[in-house]
Amino acid sequence: MPEASTAYSALEPRFRRIGALGQAAGVLHWDMATMMPEGGAAARSEQLAALSVTCHELLTHPAVAELLAAAEAESETLGPWQRANLREMTRDWRHATALDADLVEALSKAGQRCEMIWRQARPAADFAAVLPSLEALLDLKREAAAAKAEAFGCAPYDALLDQYDPGLTAARIDRIFDPLADFLPGFLERVLAKQAEKPAPIELNGPFQPERQEALARKLMAIVGFDFDHGRLDRSAHPFCGGVPDDVRITTRYDEDDALSALMAVLHETGHALYERGLPPEWRLQPVGHARGMAIHESQSLLIEMQVCRGNRFIAFAAPLIAEAFGGTGPAWQADNLTRLASRVAPGFIRVDADEVTYPAHIILRTRLERAMIAGELRPADLPGAWNEAMEELLGLTPPDDRLGCLQDIHWYDGALGYFPTYTLGAMTAAQLFAAAKAAVPEIPEALGRGDFAPLLDWLGTHVHAKGSLLTGEDLLIEATGKPLDPEVFKAHLTTRYLG
Amino acid sequence: MPEASTAYSALEPRFRRIGALGQAAGVLHWDMATMMPEGGAAARSEQLAALSVTCHELLTHPAVAELLAAAEAESETLGPWQRANLREMTRDWRHATALDADLVEALSKAGQRCEMIWRQARPAADFAAVLPSLEALLDLKREAAAAKAEAFGCAPYDALLDQYDPGLTAARIDRIFDPLADFLPGFLERVLAKQAEKPAPIELNGPFQPERQEALARKLMAIVGFDFDHGRLDRSAHPFCGGVPDDVRITTRYDEDDALSALMAVLHETGHALYERGLPPEWRLQPVGHARGMAIHESQSLLIEMQVCRGNRFIAFAAPLIAEAFGGTGPAWQADNLTRLASRVAPGFIRVDADEVTYPAHIILRTRLERAMIAGELRPADLPGAWNEAMEELLGLTPPDDRLGCLQDIHWYDGALGYFPTYTLGAMTAAQLFAAAKAAVPEIPEALGRGDFAPLLDWLGTHVHAKGSLLTGEDLLIEATGKPLDPEVFKAHLTTRYLG
Repeated sequence: MPEASTAYSALEPRFRRIGALGQAAGVLHWDMATMMPEGGAAARSEQLAALSVTCHELLTHPAVAELLAAAEAESETLGPWQRANLREMTRDWRHATALDADLVEALSKAGQRCEMIWRQARPAADFAAVLPSLEALLDLKREAAAAKAEAFGCAPYDALLDQYDPGLTAARIDRIFDPLADFLPGFLERVLAKQAEKPAPIELNGPFQPERQEALARKLMAIVGFDFDHGRLDRSAHPFCGGVPDDVRITTRYDEDDALSALMAVLHETGHALYERGLPPEWRLQPVGHARGMAIHESQSLLIEMQVCRGNRFIAFAAPLIAEAFGGTGPAWQADNLTRLASRVAPGFIRVDADEVTYPAHIILRTRLERAMIAGELRPADLPGAWNEAMEELLGLTPPDDRLGCLQDIHWYDGALGYFPTYTLGAMTAAQLFAAAKAAVPEIPEALGRGDFAPLLDWLGTHVHAKGSLLTGEDLLIEATGKPLDPEVFKAHLTTRYLG
Repeated sequence: MPEASTAYSALEPRFRRIGALGQAAGVLHWDMATMMPEGGAAARSEQLAALSVTCHELLTHPAVAELLAAAEAESETLGPWQRANLREMTRDWRHATALDADLVEALSKAGQRCEMIWRQARPAADFAAVLPSLEALLDLKREAAAAKAEAFGCAPYDALLDQYDPGLTAARIDRIFDPLADFLPGFLERVLAKQAEKPAPIELNGPFQPERQEALARKLMAIVGFDFDHGRLDRSAHPFCGGVPDDVRITTRYDEDDALSALMAVLHETGHALYERGLPPEWRLQPVGHARGMAIHESQSLLIEMQVCRGNRFIAFAAPLIAEAFGGTGPAWQADNLTRLASRVAPGFIRVDADEVTYPAHIILRTRLERAMIAGELRPADLPGAWNEAMEELLGLTPPDDRLGCLQDIHWYDGALGYFPTYTLGAMTAAQLFAAAKAAVPEIPEALGRGDFAPLLDWLGTHVHAKGSLLTGEDLLIEATGKPLDPEVFKAHLTTRYLG
């Protein structure tokens, strides 16, 4: 590898520090959702804001602009990982310099405040309680989006999308989502009709003790490849994967009436965790060592959950373990019934419980509404009404209350606008990566049927995890699968699974 | 209150940021000891080092020196809290500027590394395993002590003492500990003789399930005044009080063979927690809002544990709750027997299990050895031998292995040299504060006998907790009790309790 330029070498320690402070914030966010008593919220908000502002200062220091320019001028002396790191450093720097420090601090605090109020408001279905803090947060998000839009010469919503998935634009989302929006309603009808021809799956009779659910989840996490020496499973209001690559903290919530929902949520988060753990260790705290955007991230969780763990081969392997965990016997606990339960299609209110056929409708709804909010065309006060109308239009359902409607997801209430589209891009990417993995390594399906994830993880590790942010998301997909995102692969997967 | 000077006003936000980053480190330290899987250690070390170095940079920025000088020149325009805050800012600044950034980072990382190895080495009684990292850490501590000694014009060990208890010196420790070292051996003999005249207390027969111990501990914590909306109780290898004032995290470990040891440890940490919670909220993230040194801190834990909870009035109240928690019946579970168990004097190997008569010997031993290590007169390799010799001399016991000897405490292994003397200073301060509280508010003892801590906490809140770092430790004690630390009060307490 060629020797690093002086300017580049001076950048690495600074970004290493930023990376470590960002990790500290990651652990504090996890703690906030799992361990922190309510009374700790104000102090935590100060801690996270101090970290945000400190990272912002480190990034926007005048020396960084000079060093980035000098390193760019010398970039022929850099190796490919260093060049990619410089590209990602520049990206982080552009996002930071677009905002002033006061706005960064205000955004951090408004996000913490709104999230803490949402934690109370959601179970109480009390949108009015969280509305003022959502309004305050949205004002700041719109201010930030406008500032970035001006700096980058793009639309405000595109500037938000770019934060979560570099290069993603509303135009690209439309190109991908519009045909899907055309395809899915008719497809859903056919799936529901076909499903109706068969006998309904036998329901599993609960209650299912959370302790037993958790023990089973841990067992299957380990089988999938989660390393408990480098991570934890805990409980939170909203399942997520947090922490840091060498200490991945995943969480879930348990529903005593449902044996499979928490299990599948845990396997989903395990997919995220495996990605984090597999990022290139030699670039741990550098921008190029981070995950390549949230669409790829979501592809890893959905590949494990939707492509593998809800498929009949894996369920054939897991069925005896599931039955044993709950002392279940009889036909309800057989693999074929569990597969039918795990891949049952049914329009519902809750995104995280949605099947993969109706899931995109949830995303299309959220993408539409958040675009309108950022554009100033939808006021937060009108969100419940707009939500319920869109649900009626897209899935034929009207939520009975906001807990099952616009209060269900944390994202907007902690300021993550522009994030939702990556879920459906991730679902499509997952289908494409899994198809490519099976084509490249034909023994993968049979191995998964034995609970052996090694061949799959080996392929994912090489082609996705260990790449970090070396490539753009599109180039990563082309190198791994031979082509850019192709919605036909996702449609083919749905067709095979649900109409095959 | 007079208006703040411009220079002073510019200092507060900077120290507020430092305070918030220090709180972030506090939560990460707690997580490290309670939640973090082993594989997260290297990443955590990077996170904590980044926080240390960042705070060091914020403190040592050239602007701070100028602002401190300017604020000092204008100090007549400041109110008393602001003046005290400026004094504490200056103190923090002096400690920071004495060290260069590389040493700060190296110290932080060496401390994390050594602590993680100690966690393995202690249960295995394997001193050799931790020796190399202890040597590396001690080298850095000696370098830091020498640098501060030069900057402050004091002895290296005094520079370390000052970090934990402002103004404390080895000379003052000698003045206080030497007479105690003369008094205690003869006193211990008399106590043991008197104890031997009476029938031995009846042992409680275990095992005592950790879940039951924890439930009882939570019940009594709440009675003492712990606010679970602003704190937690968890498990760790070594009991401690961590977190932040609005989110105090206390920990303990449970011994299945001992019904009282974890309980008393929890009540001890609850005393620390009440102090943190009671610090002046309007000065939360400023230096003057912090606890007034570790001797006062320890006085608060020992006041609750030793002065109150091991006393016969509180045990008379708590005995039925303790018996109920474990389903205990009969004379062993009566208050008088529990009091005798809780105040039994017996030389032993473990400091944290020691009674208050032999406890100072443990501290005298550690103070002597750490002074020798800092002076370069005792090499870490010779620590086990020196420890065992001193134990034989001071308490007539030779530890059978290093787990019961020099590996028992975390302090040296995470770099906290100069901390130990504050335990015994705290014990003496506790006796003096409790005596003053009872003299000022005569109903305190009777209230404690009903499990009513309000009158005591009211007095402590006013005279200790809410003072933060407004006063020096000595002035605080004089204002609260009418005199500086007076060893006779501690002796009188011991005499009344053990020979009365």
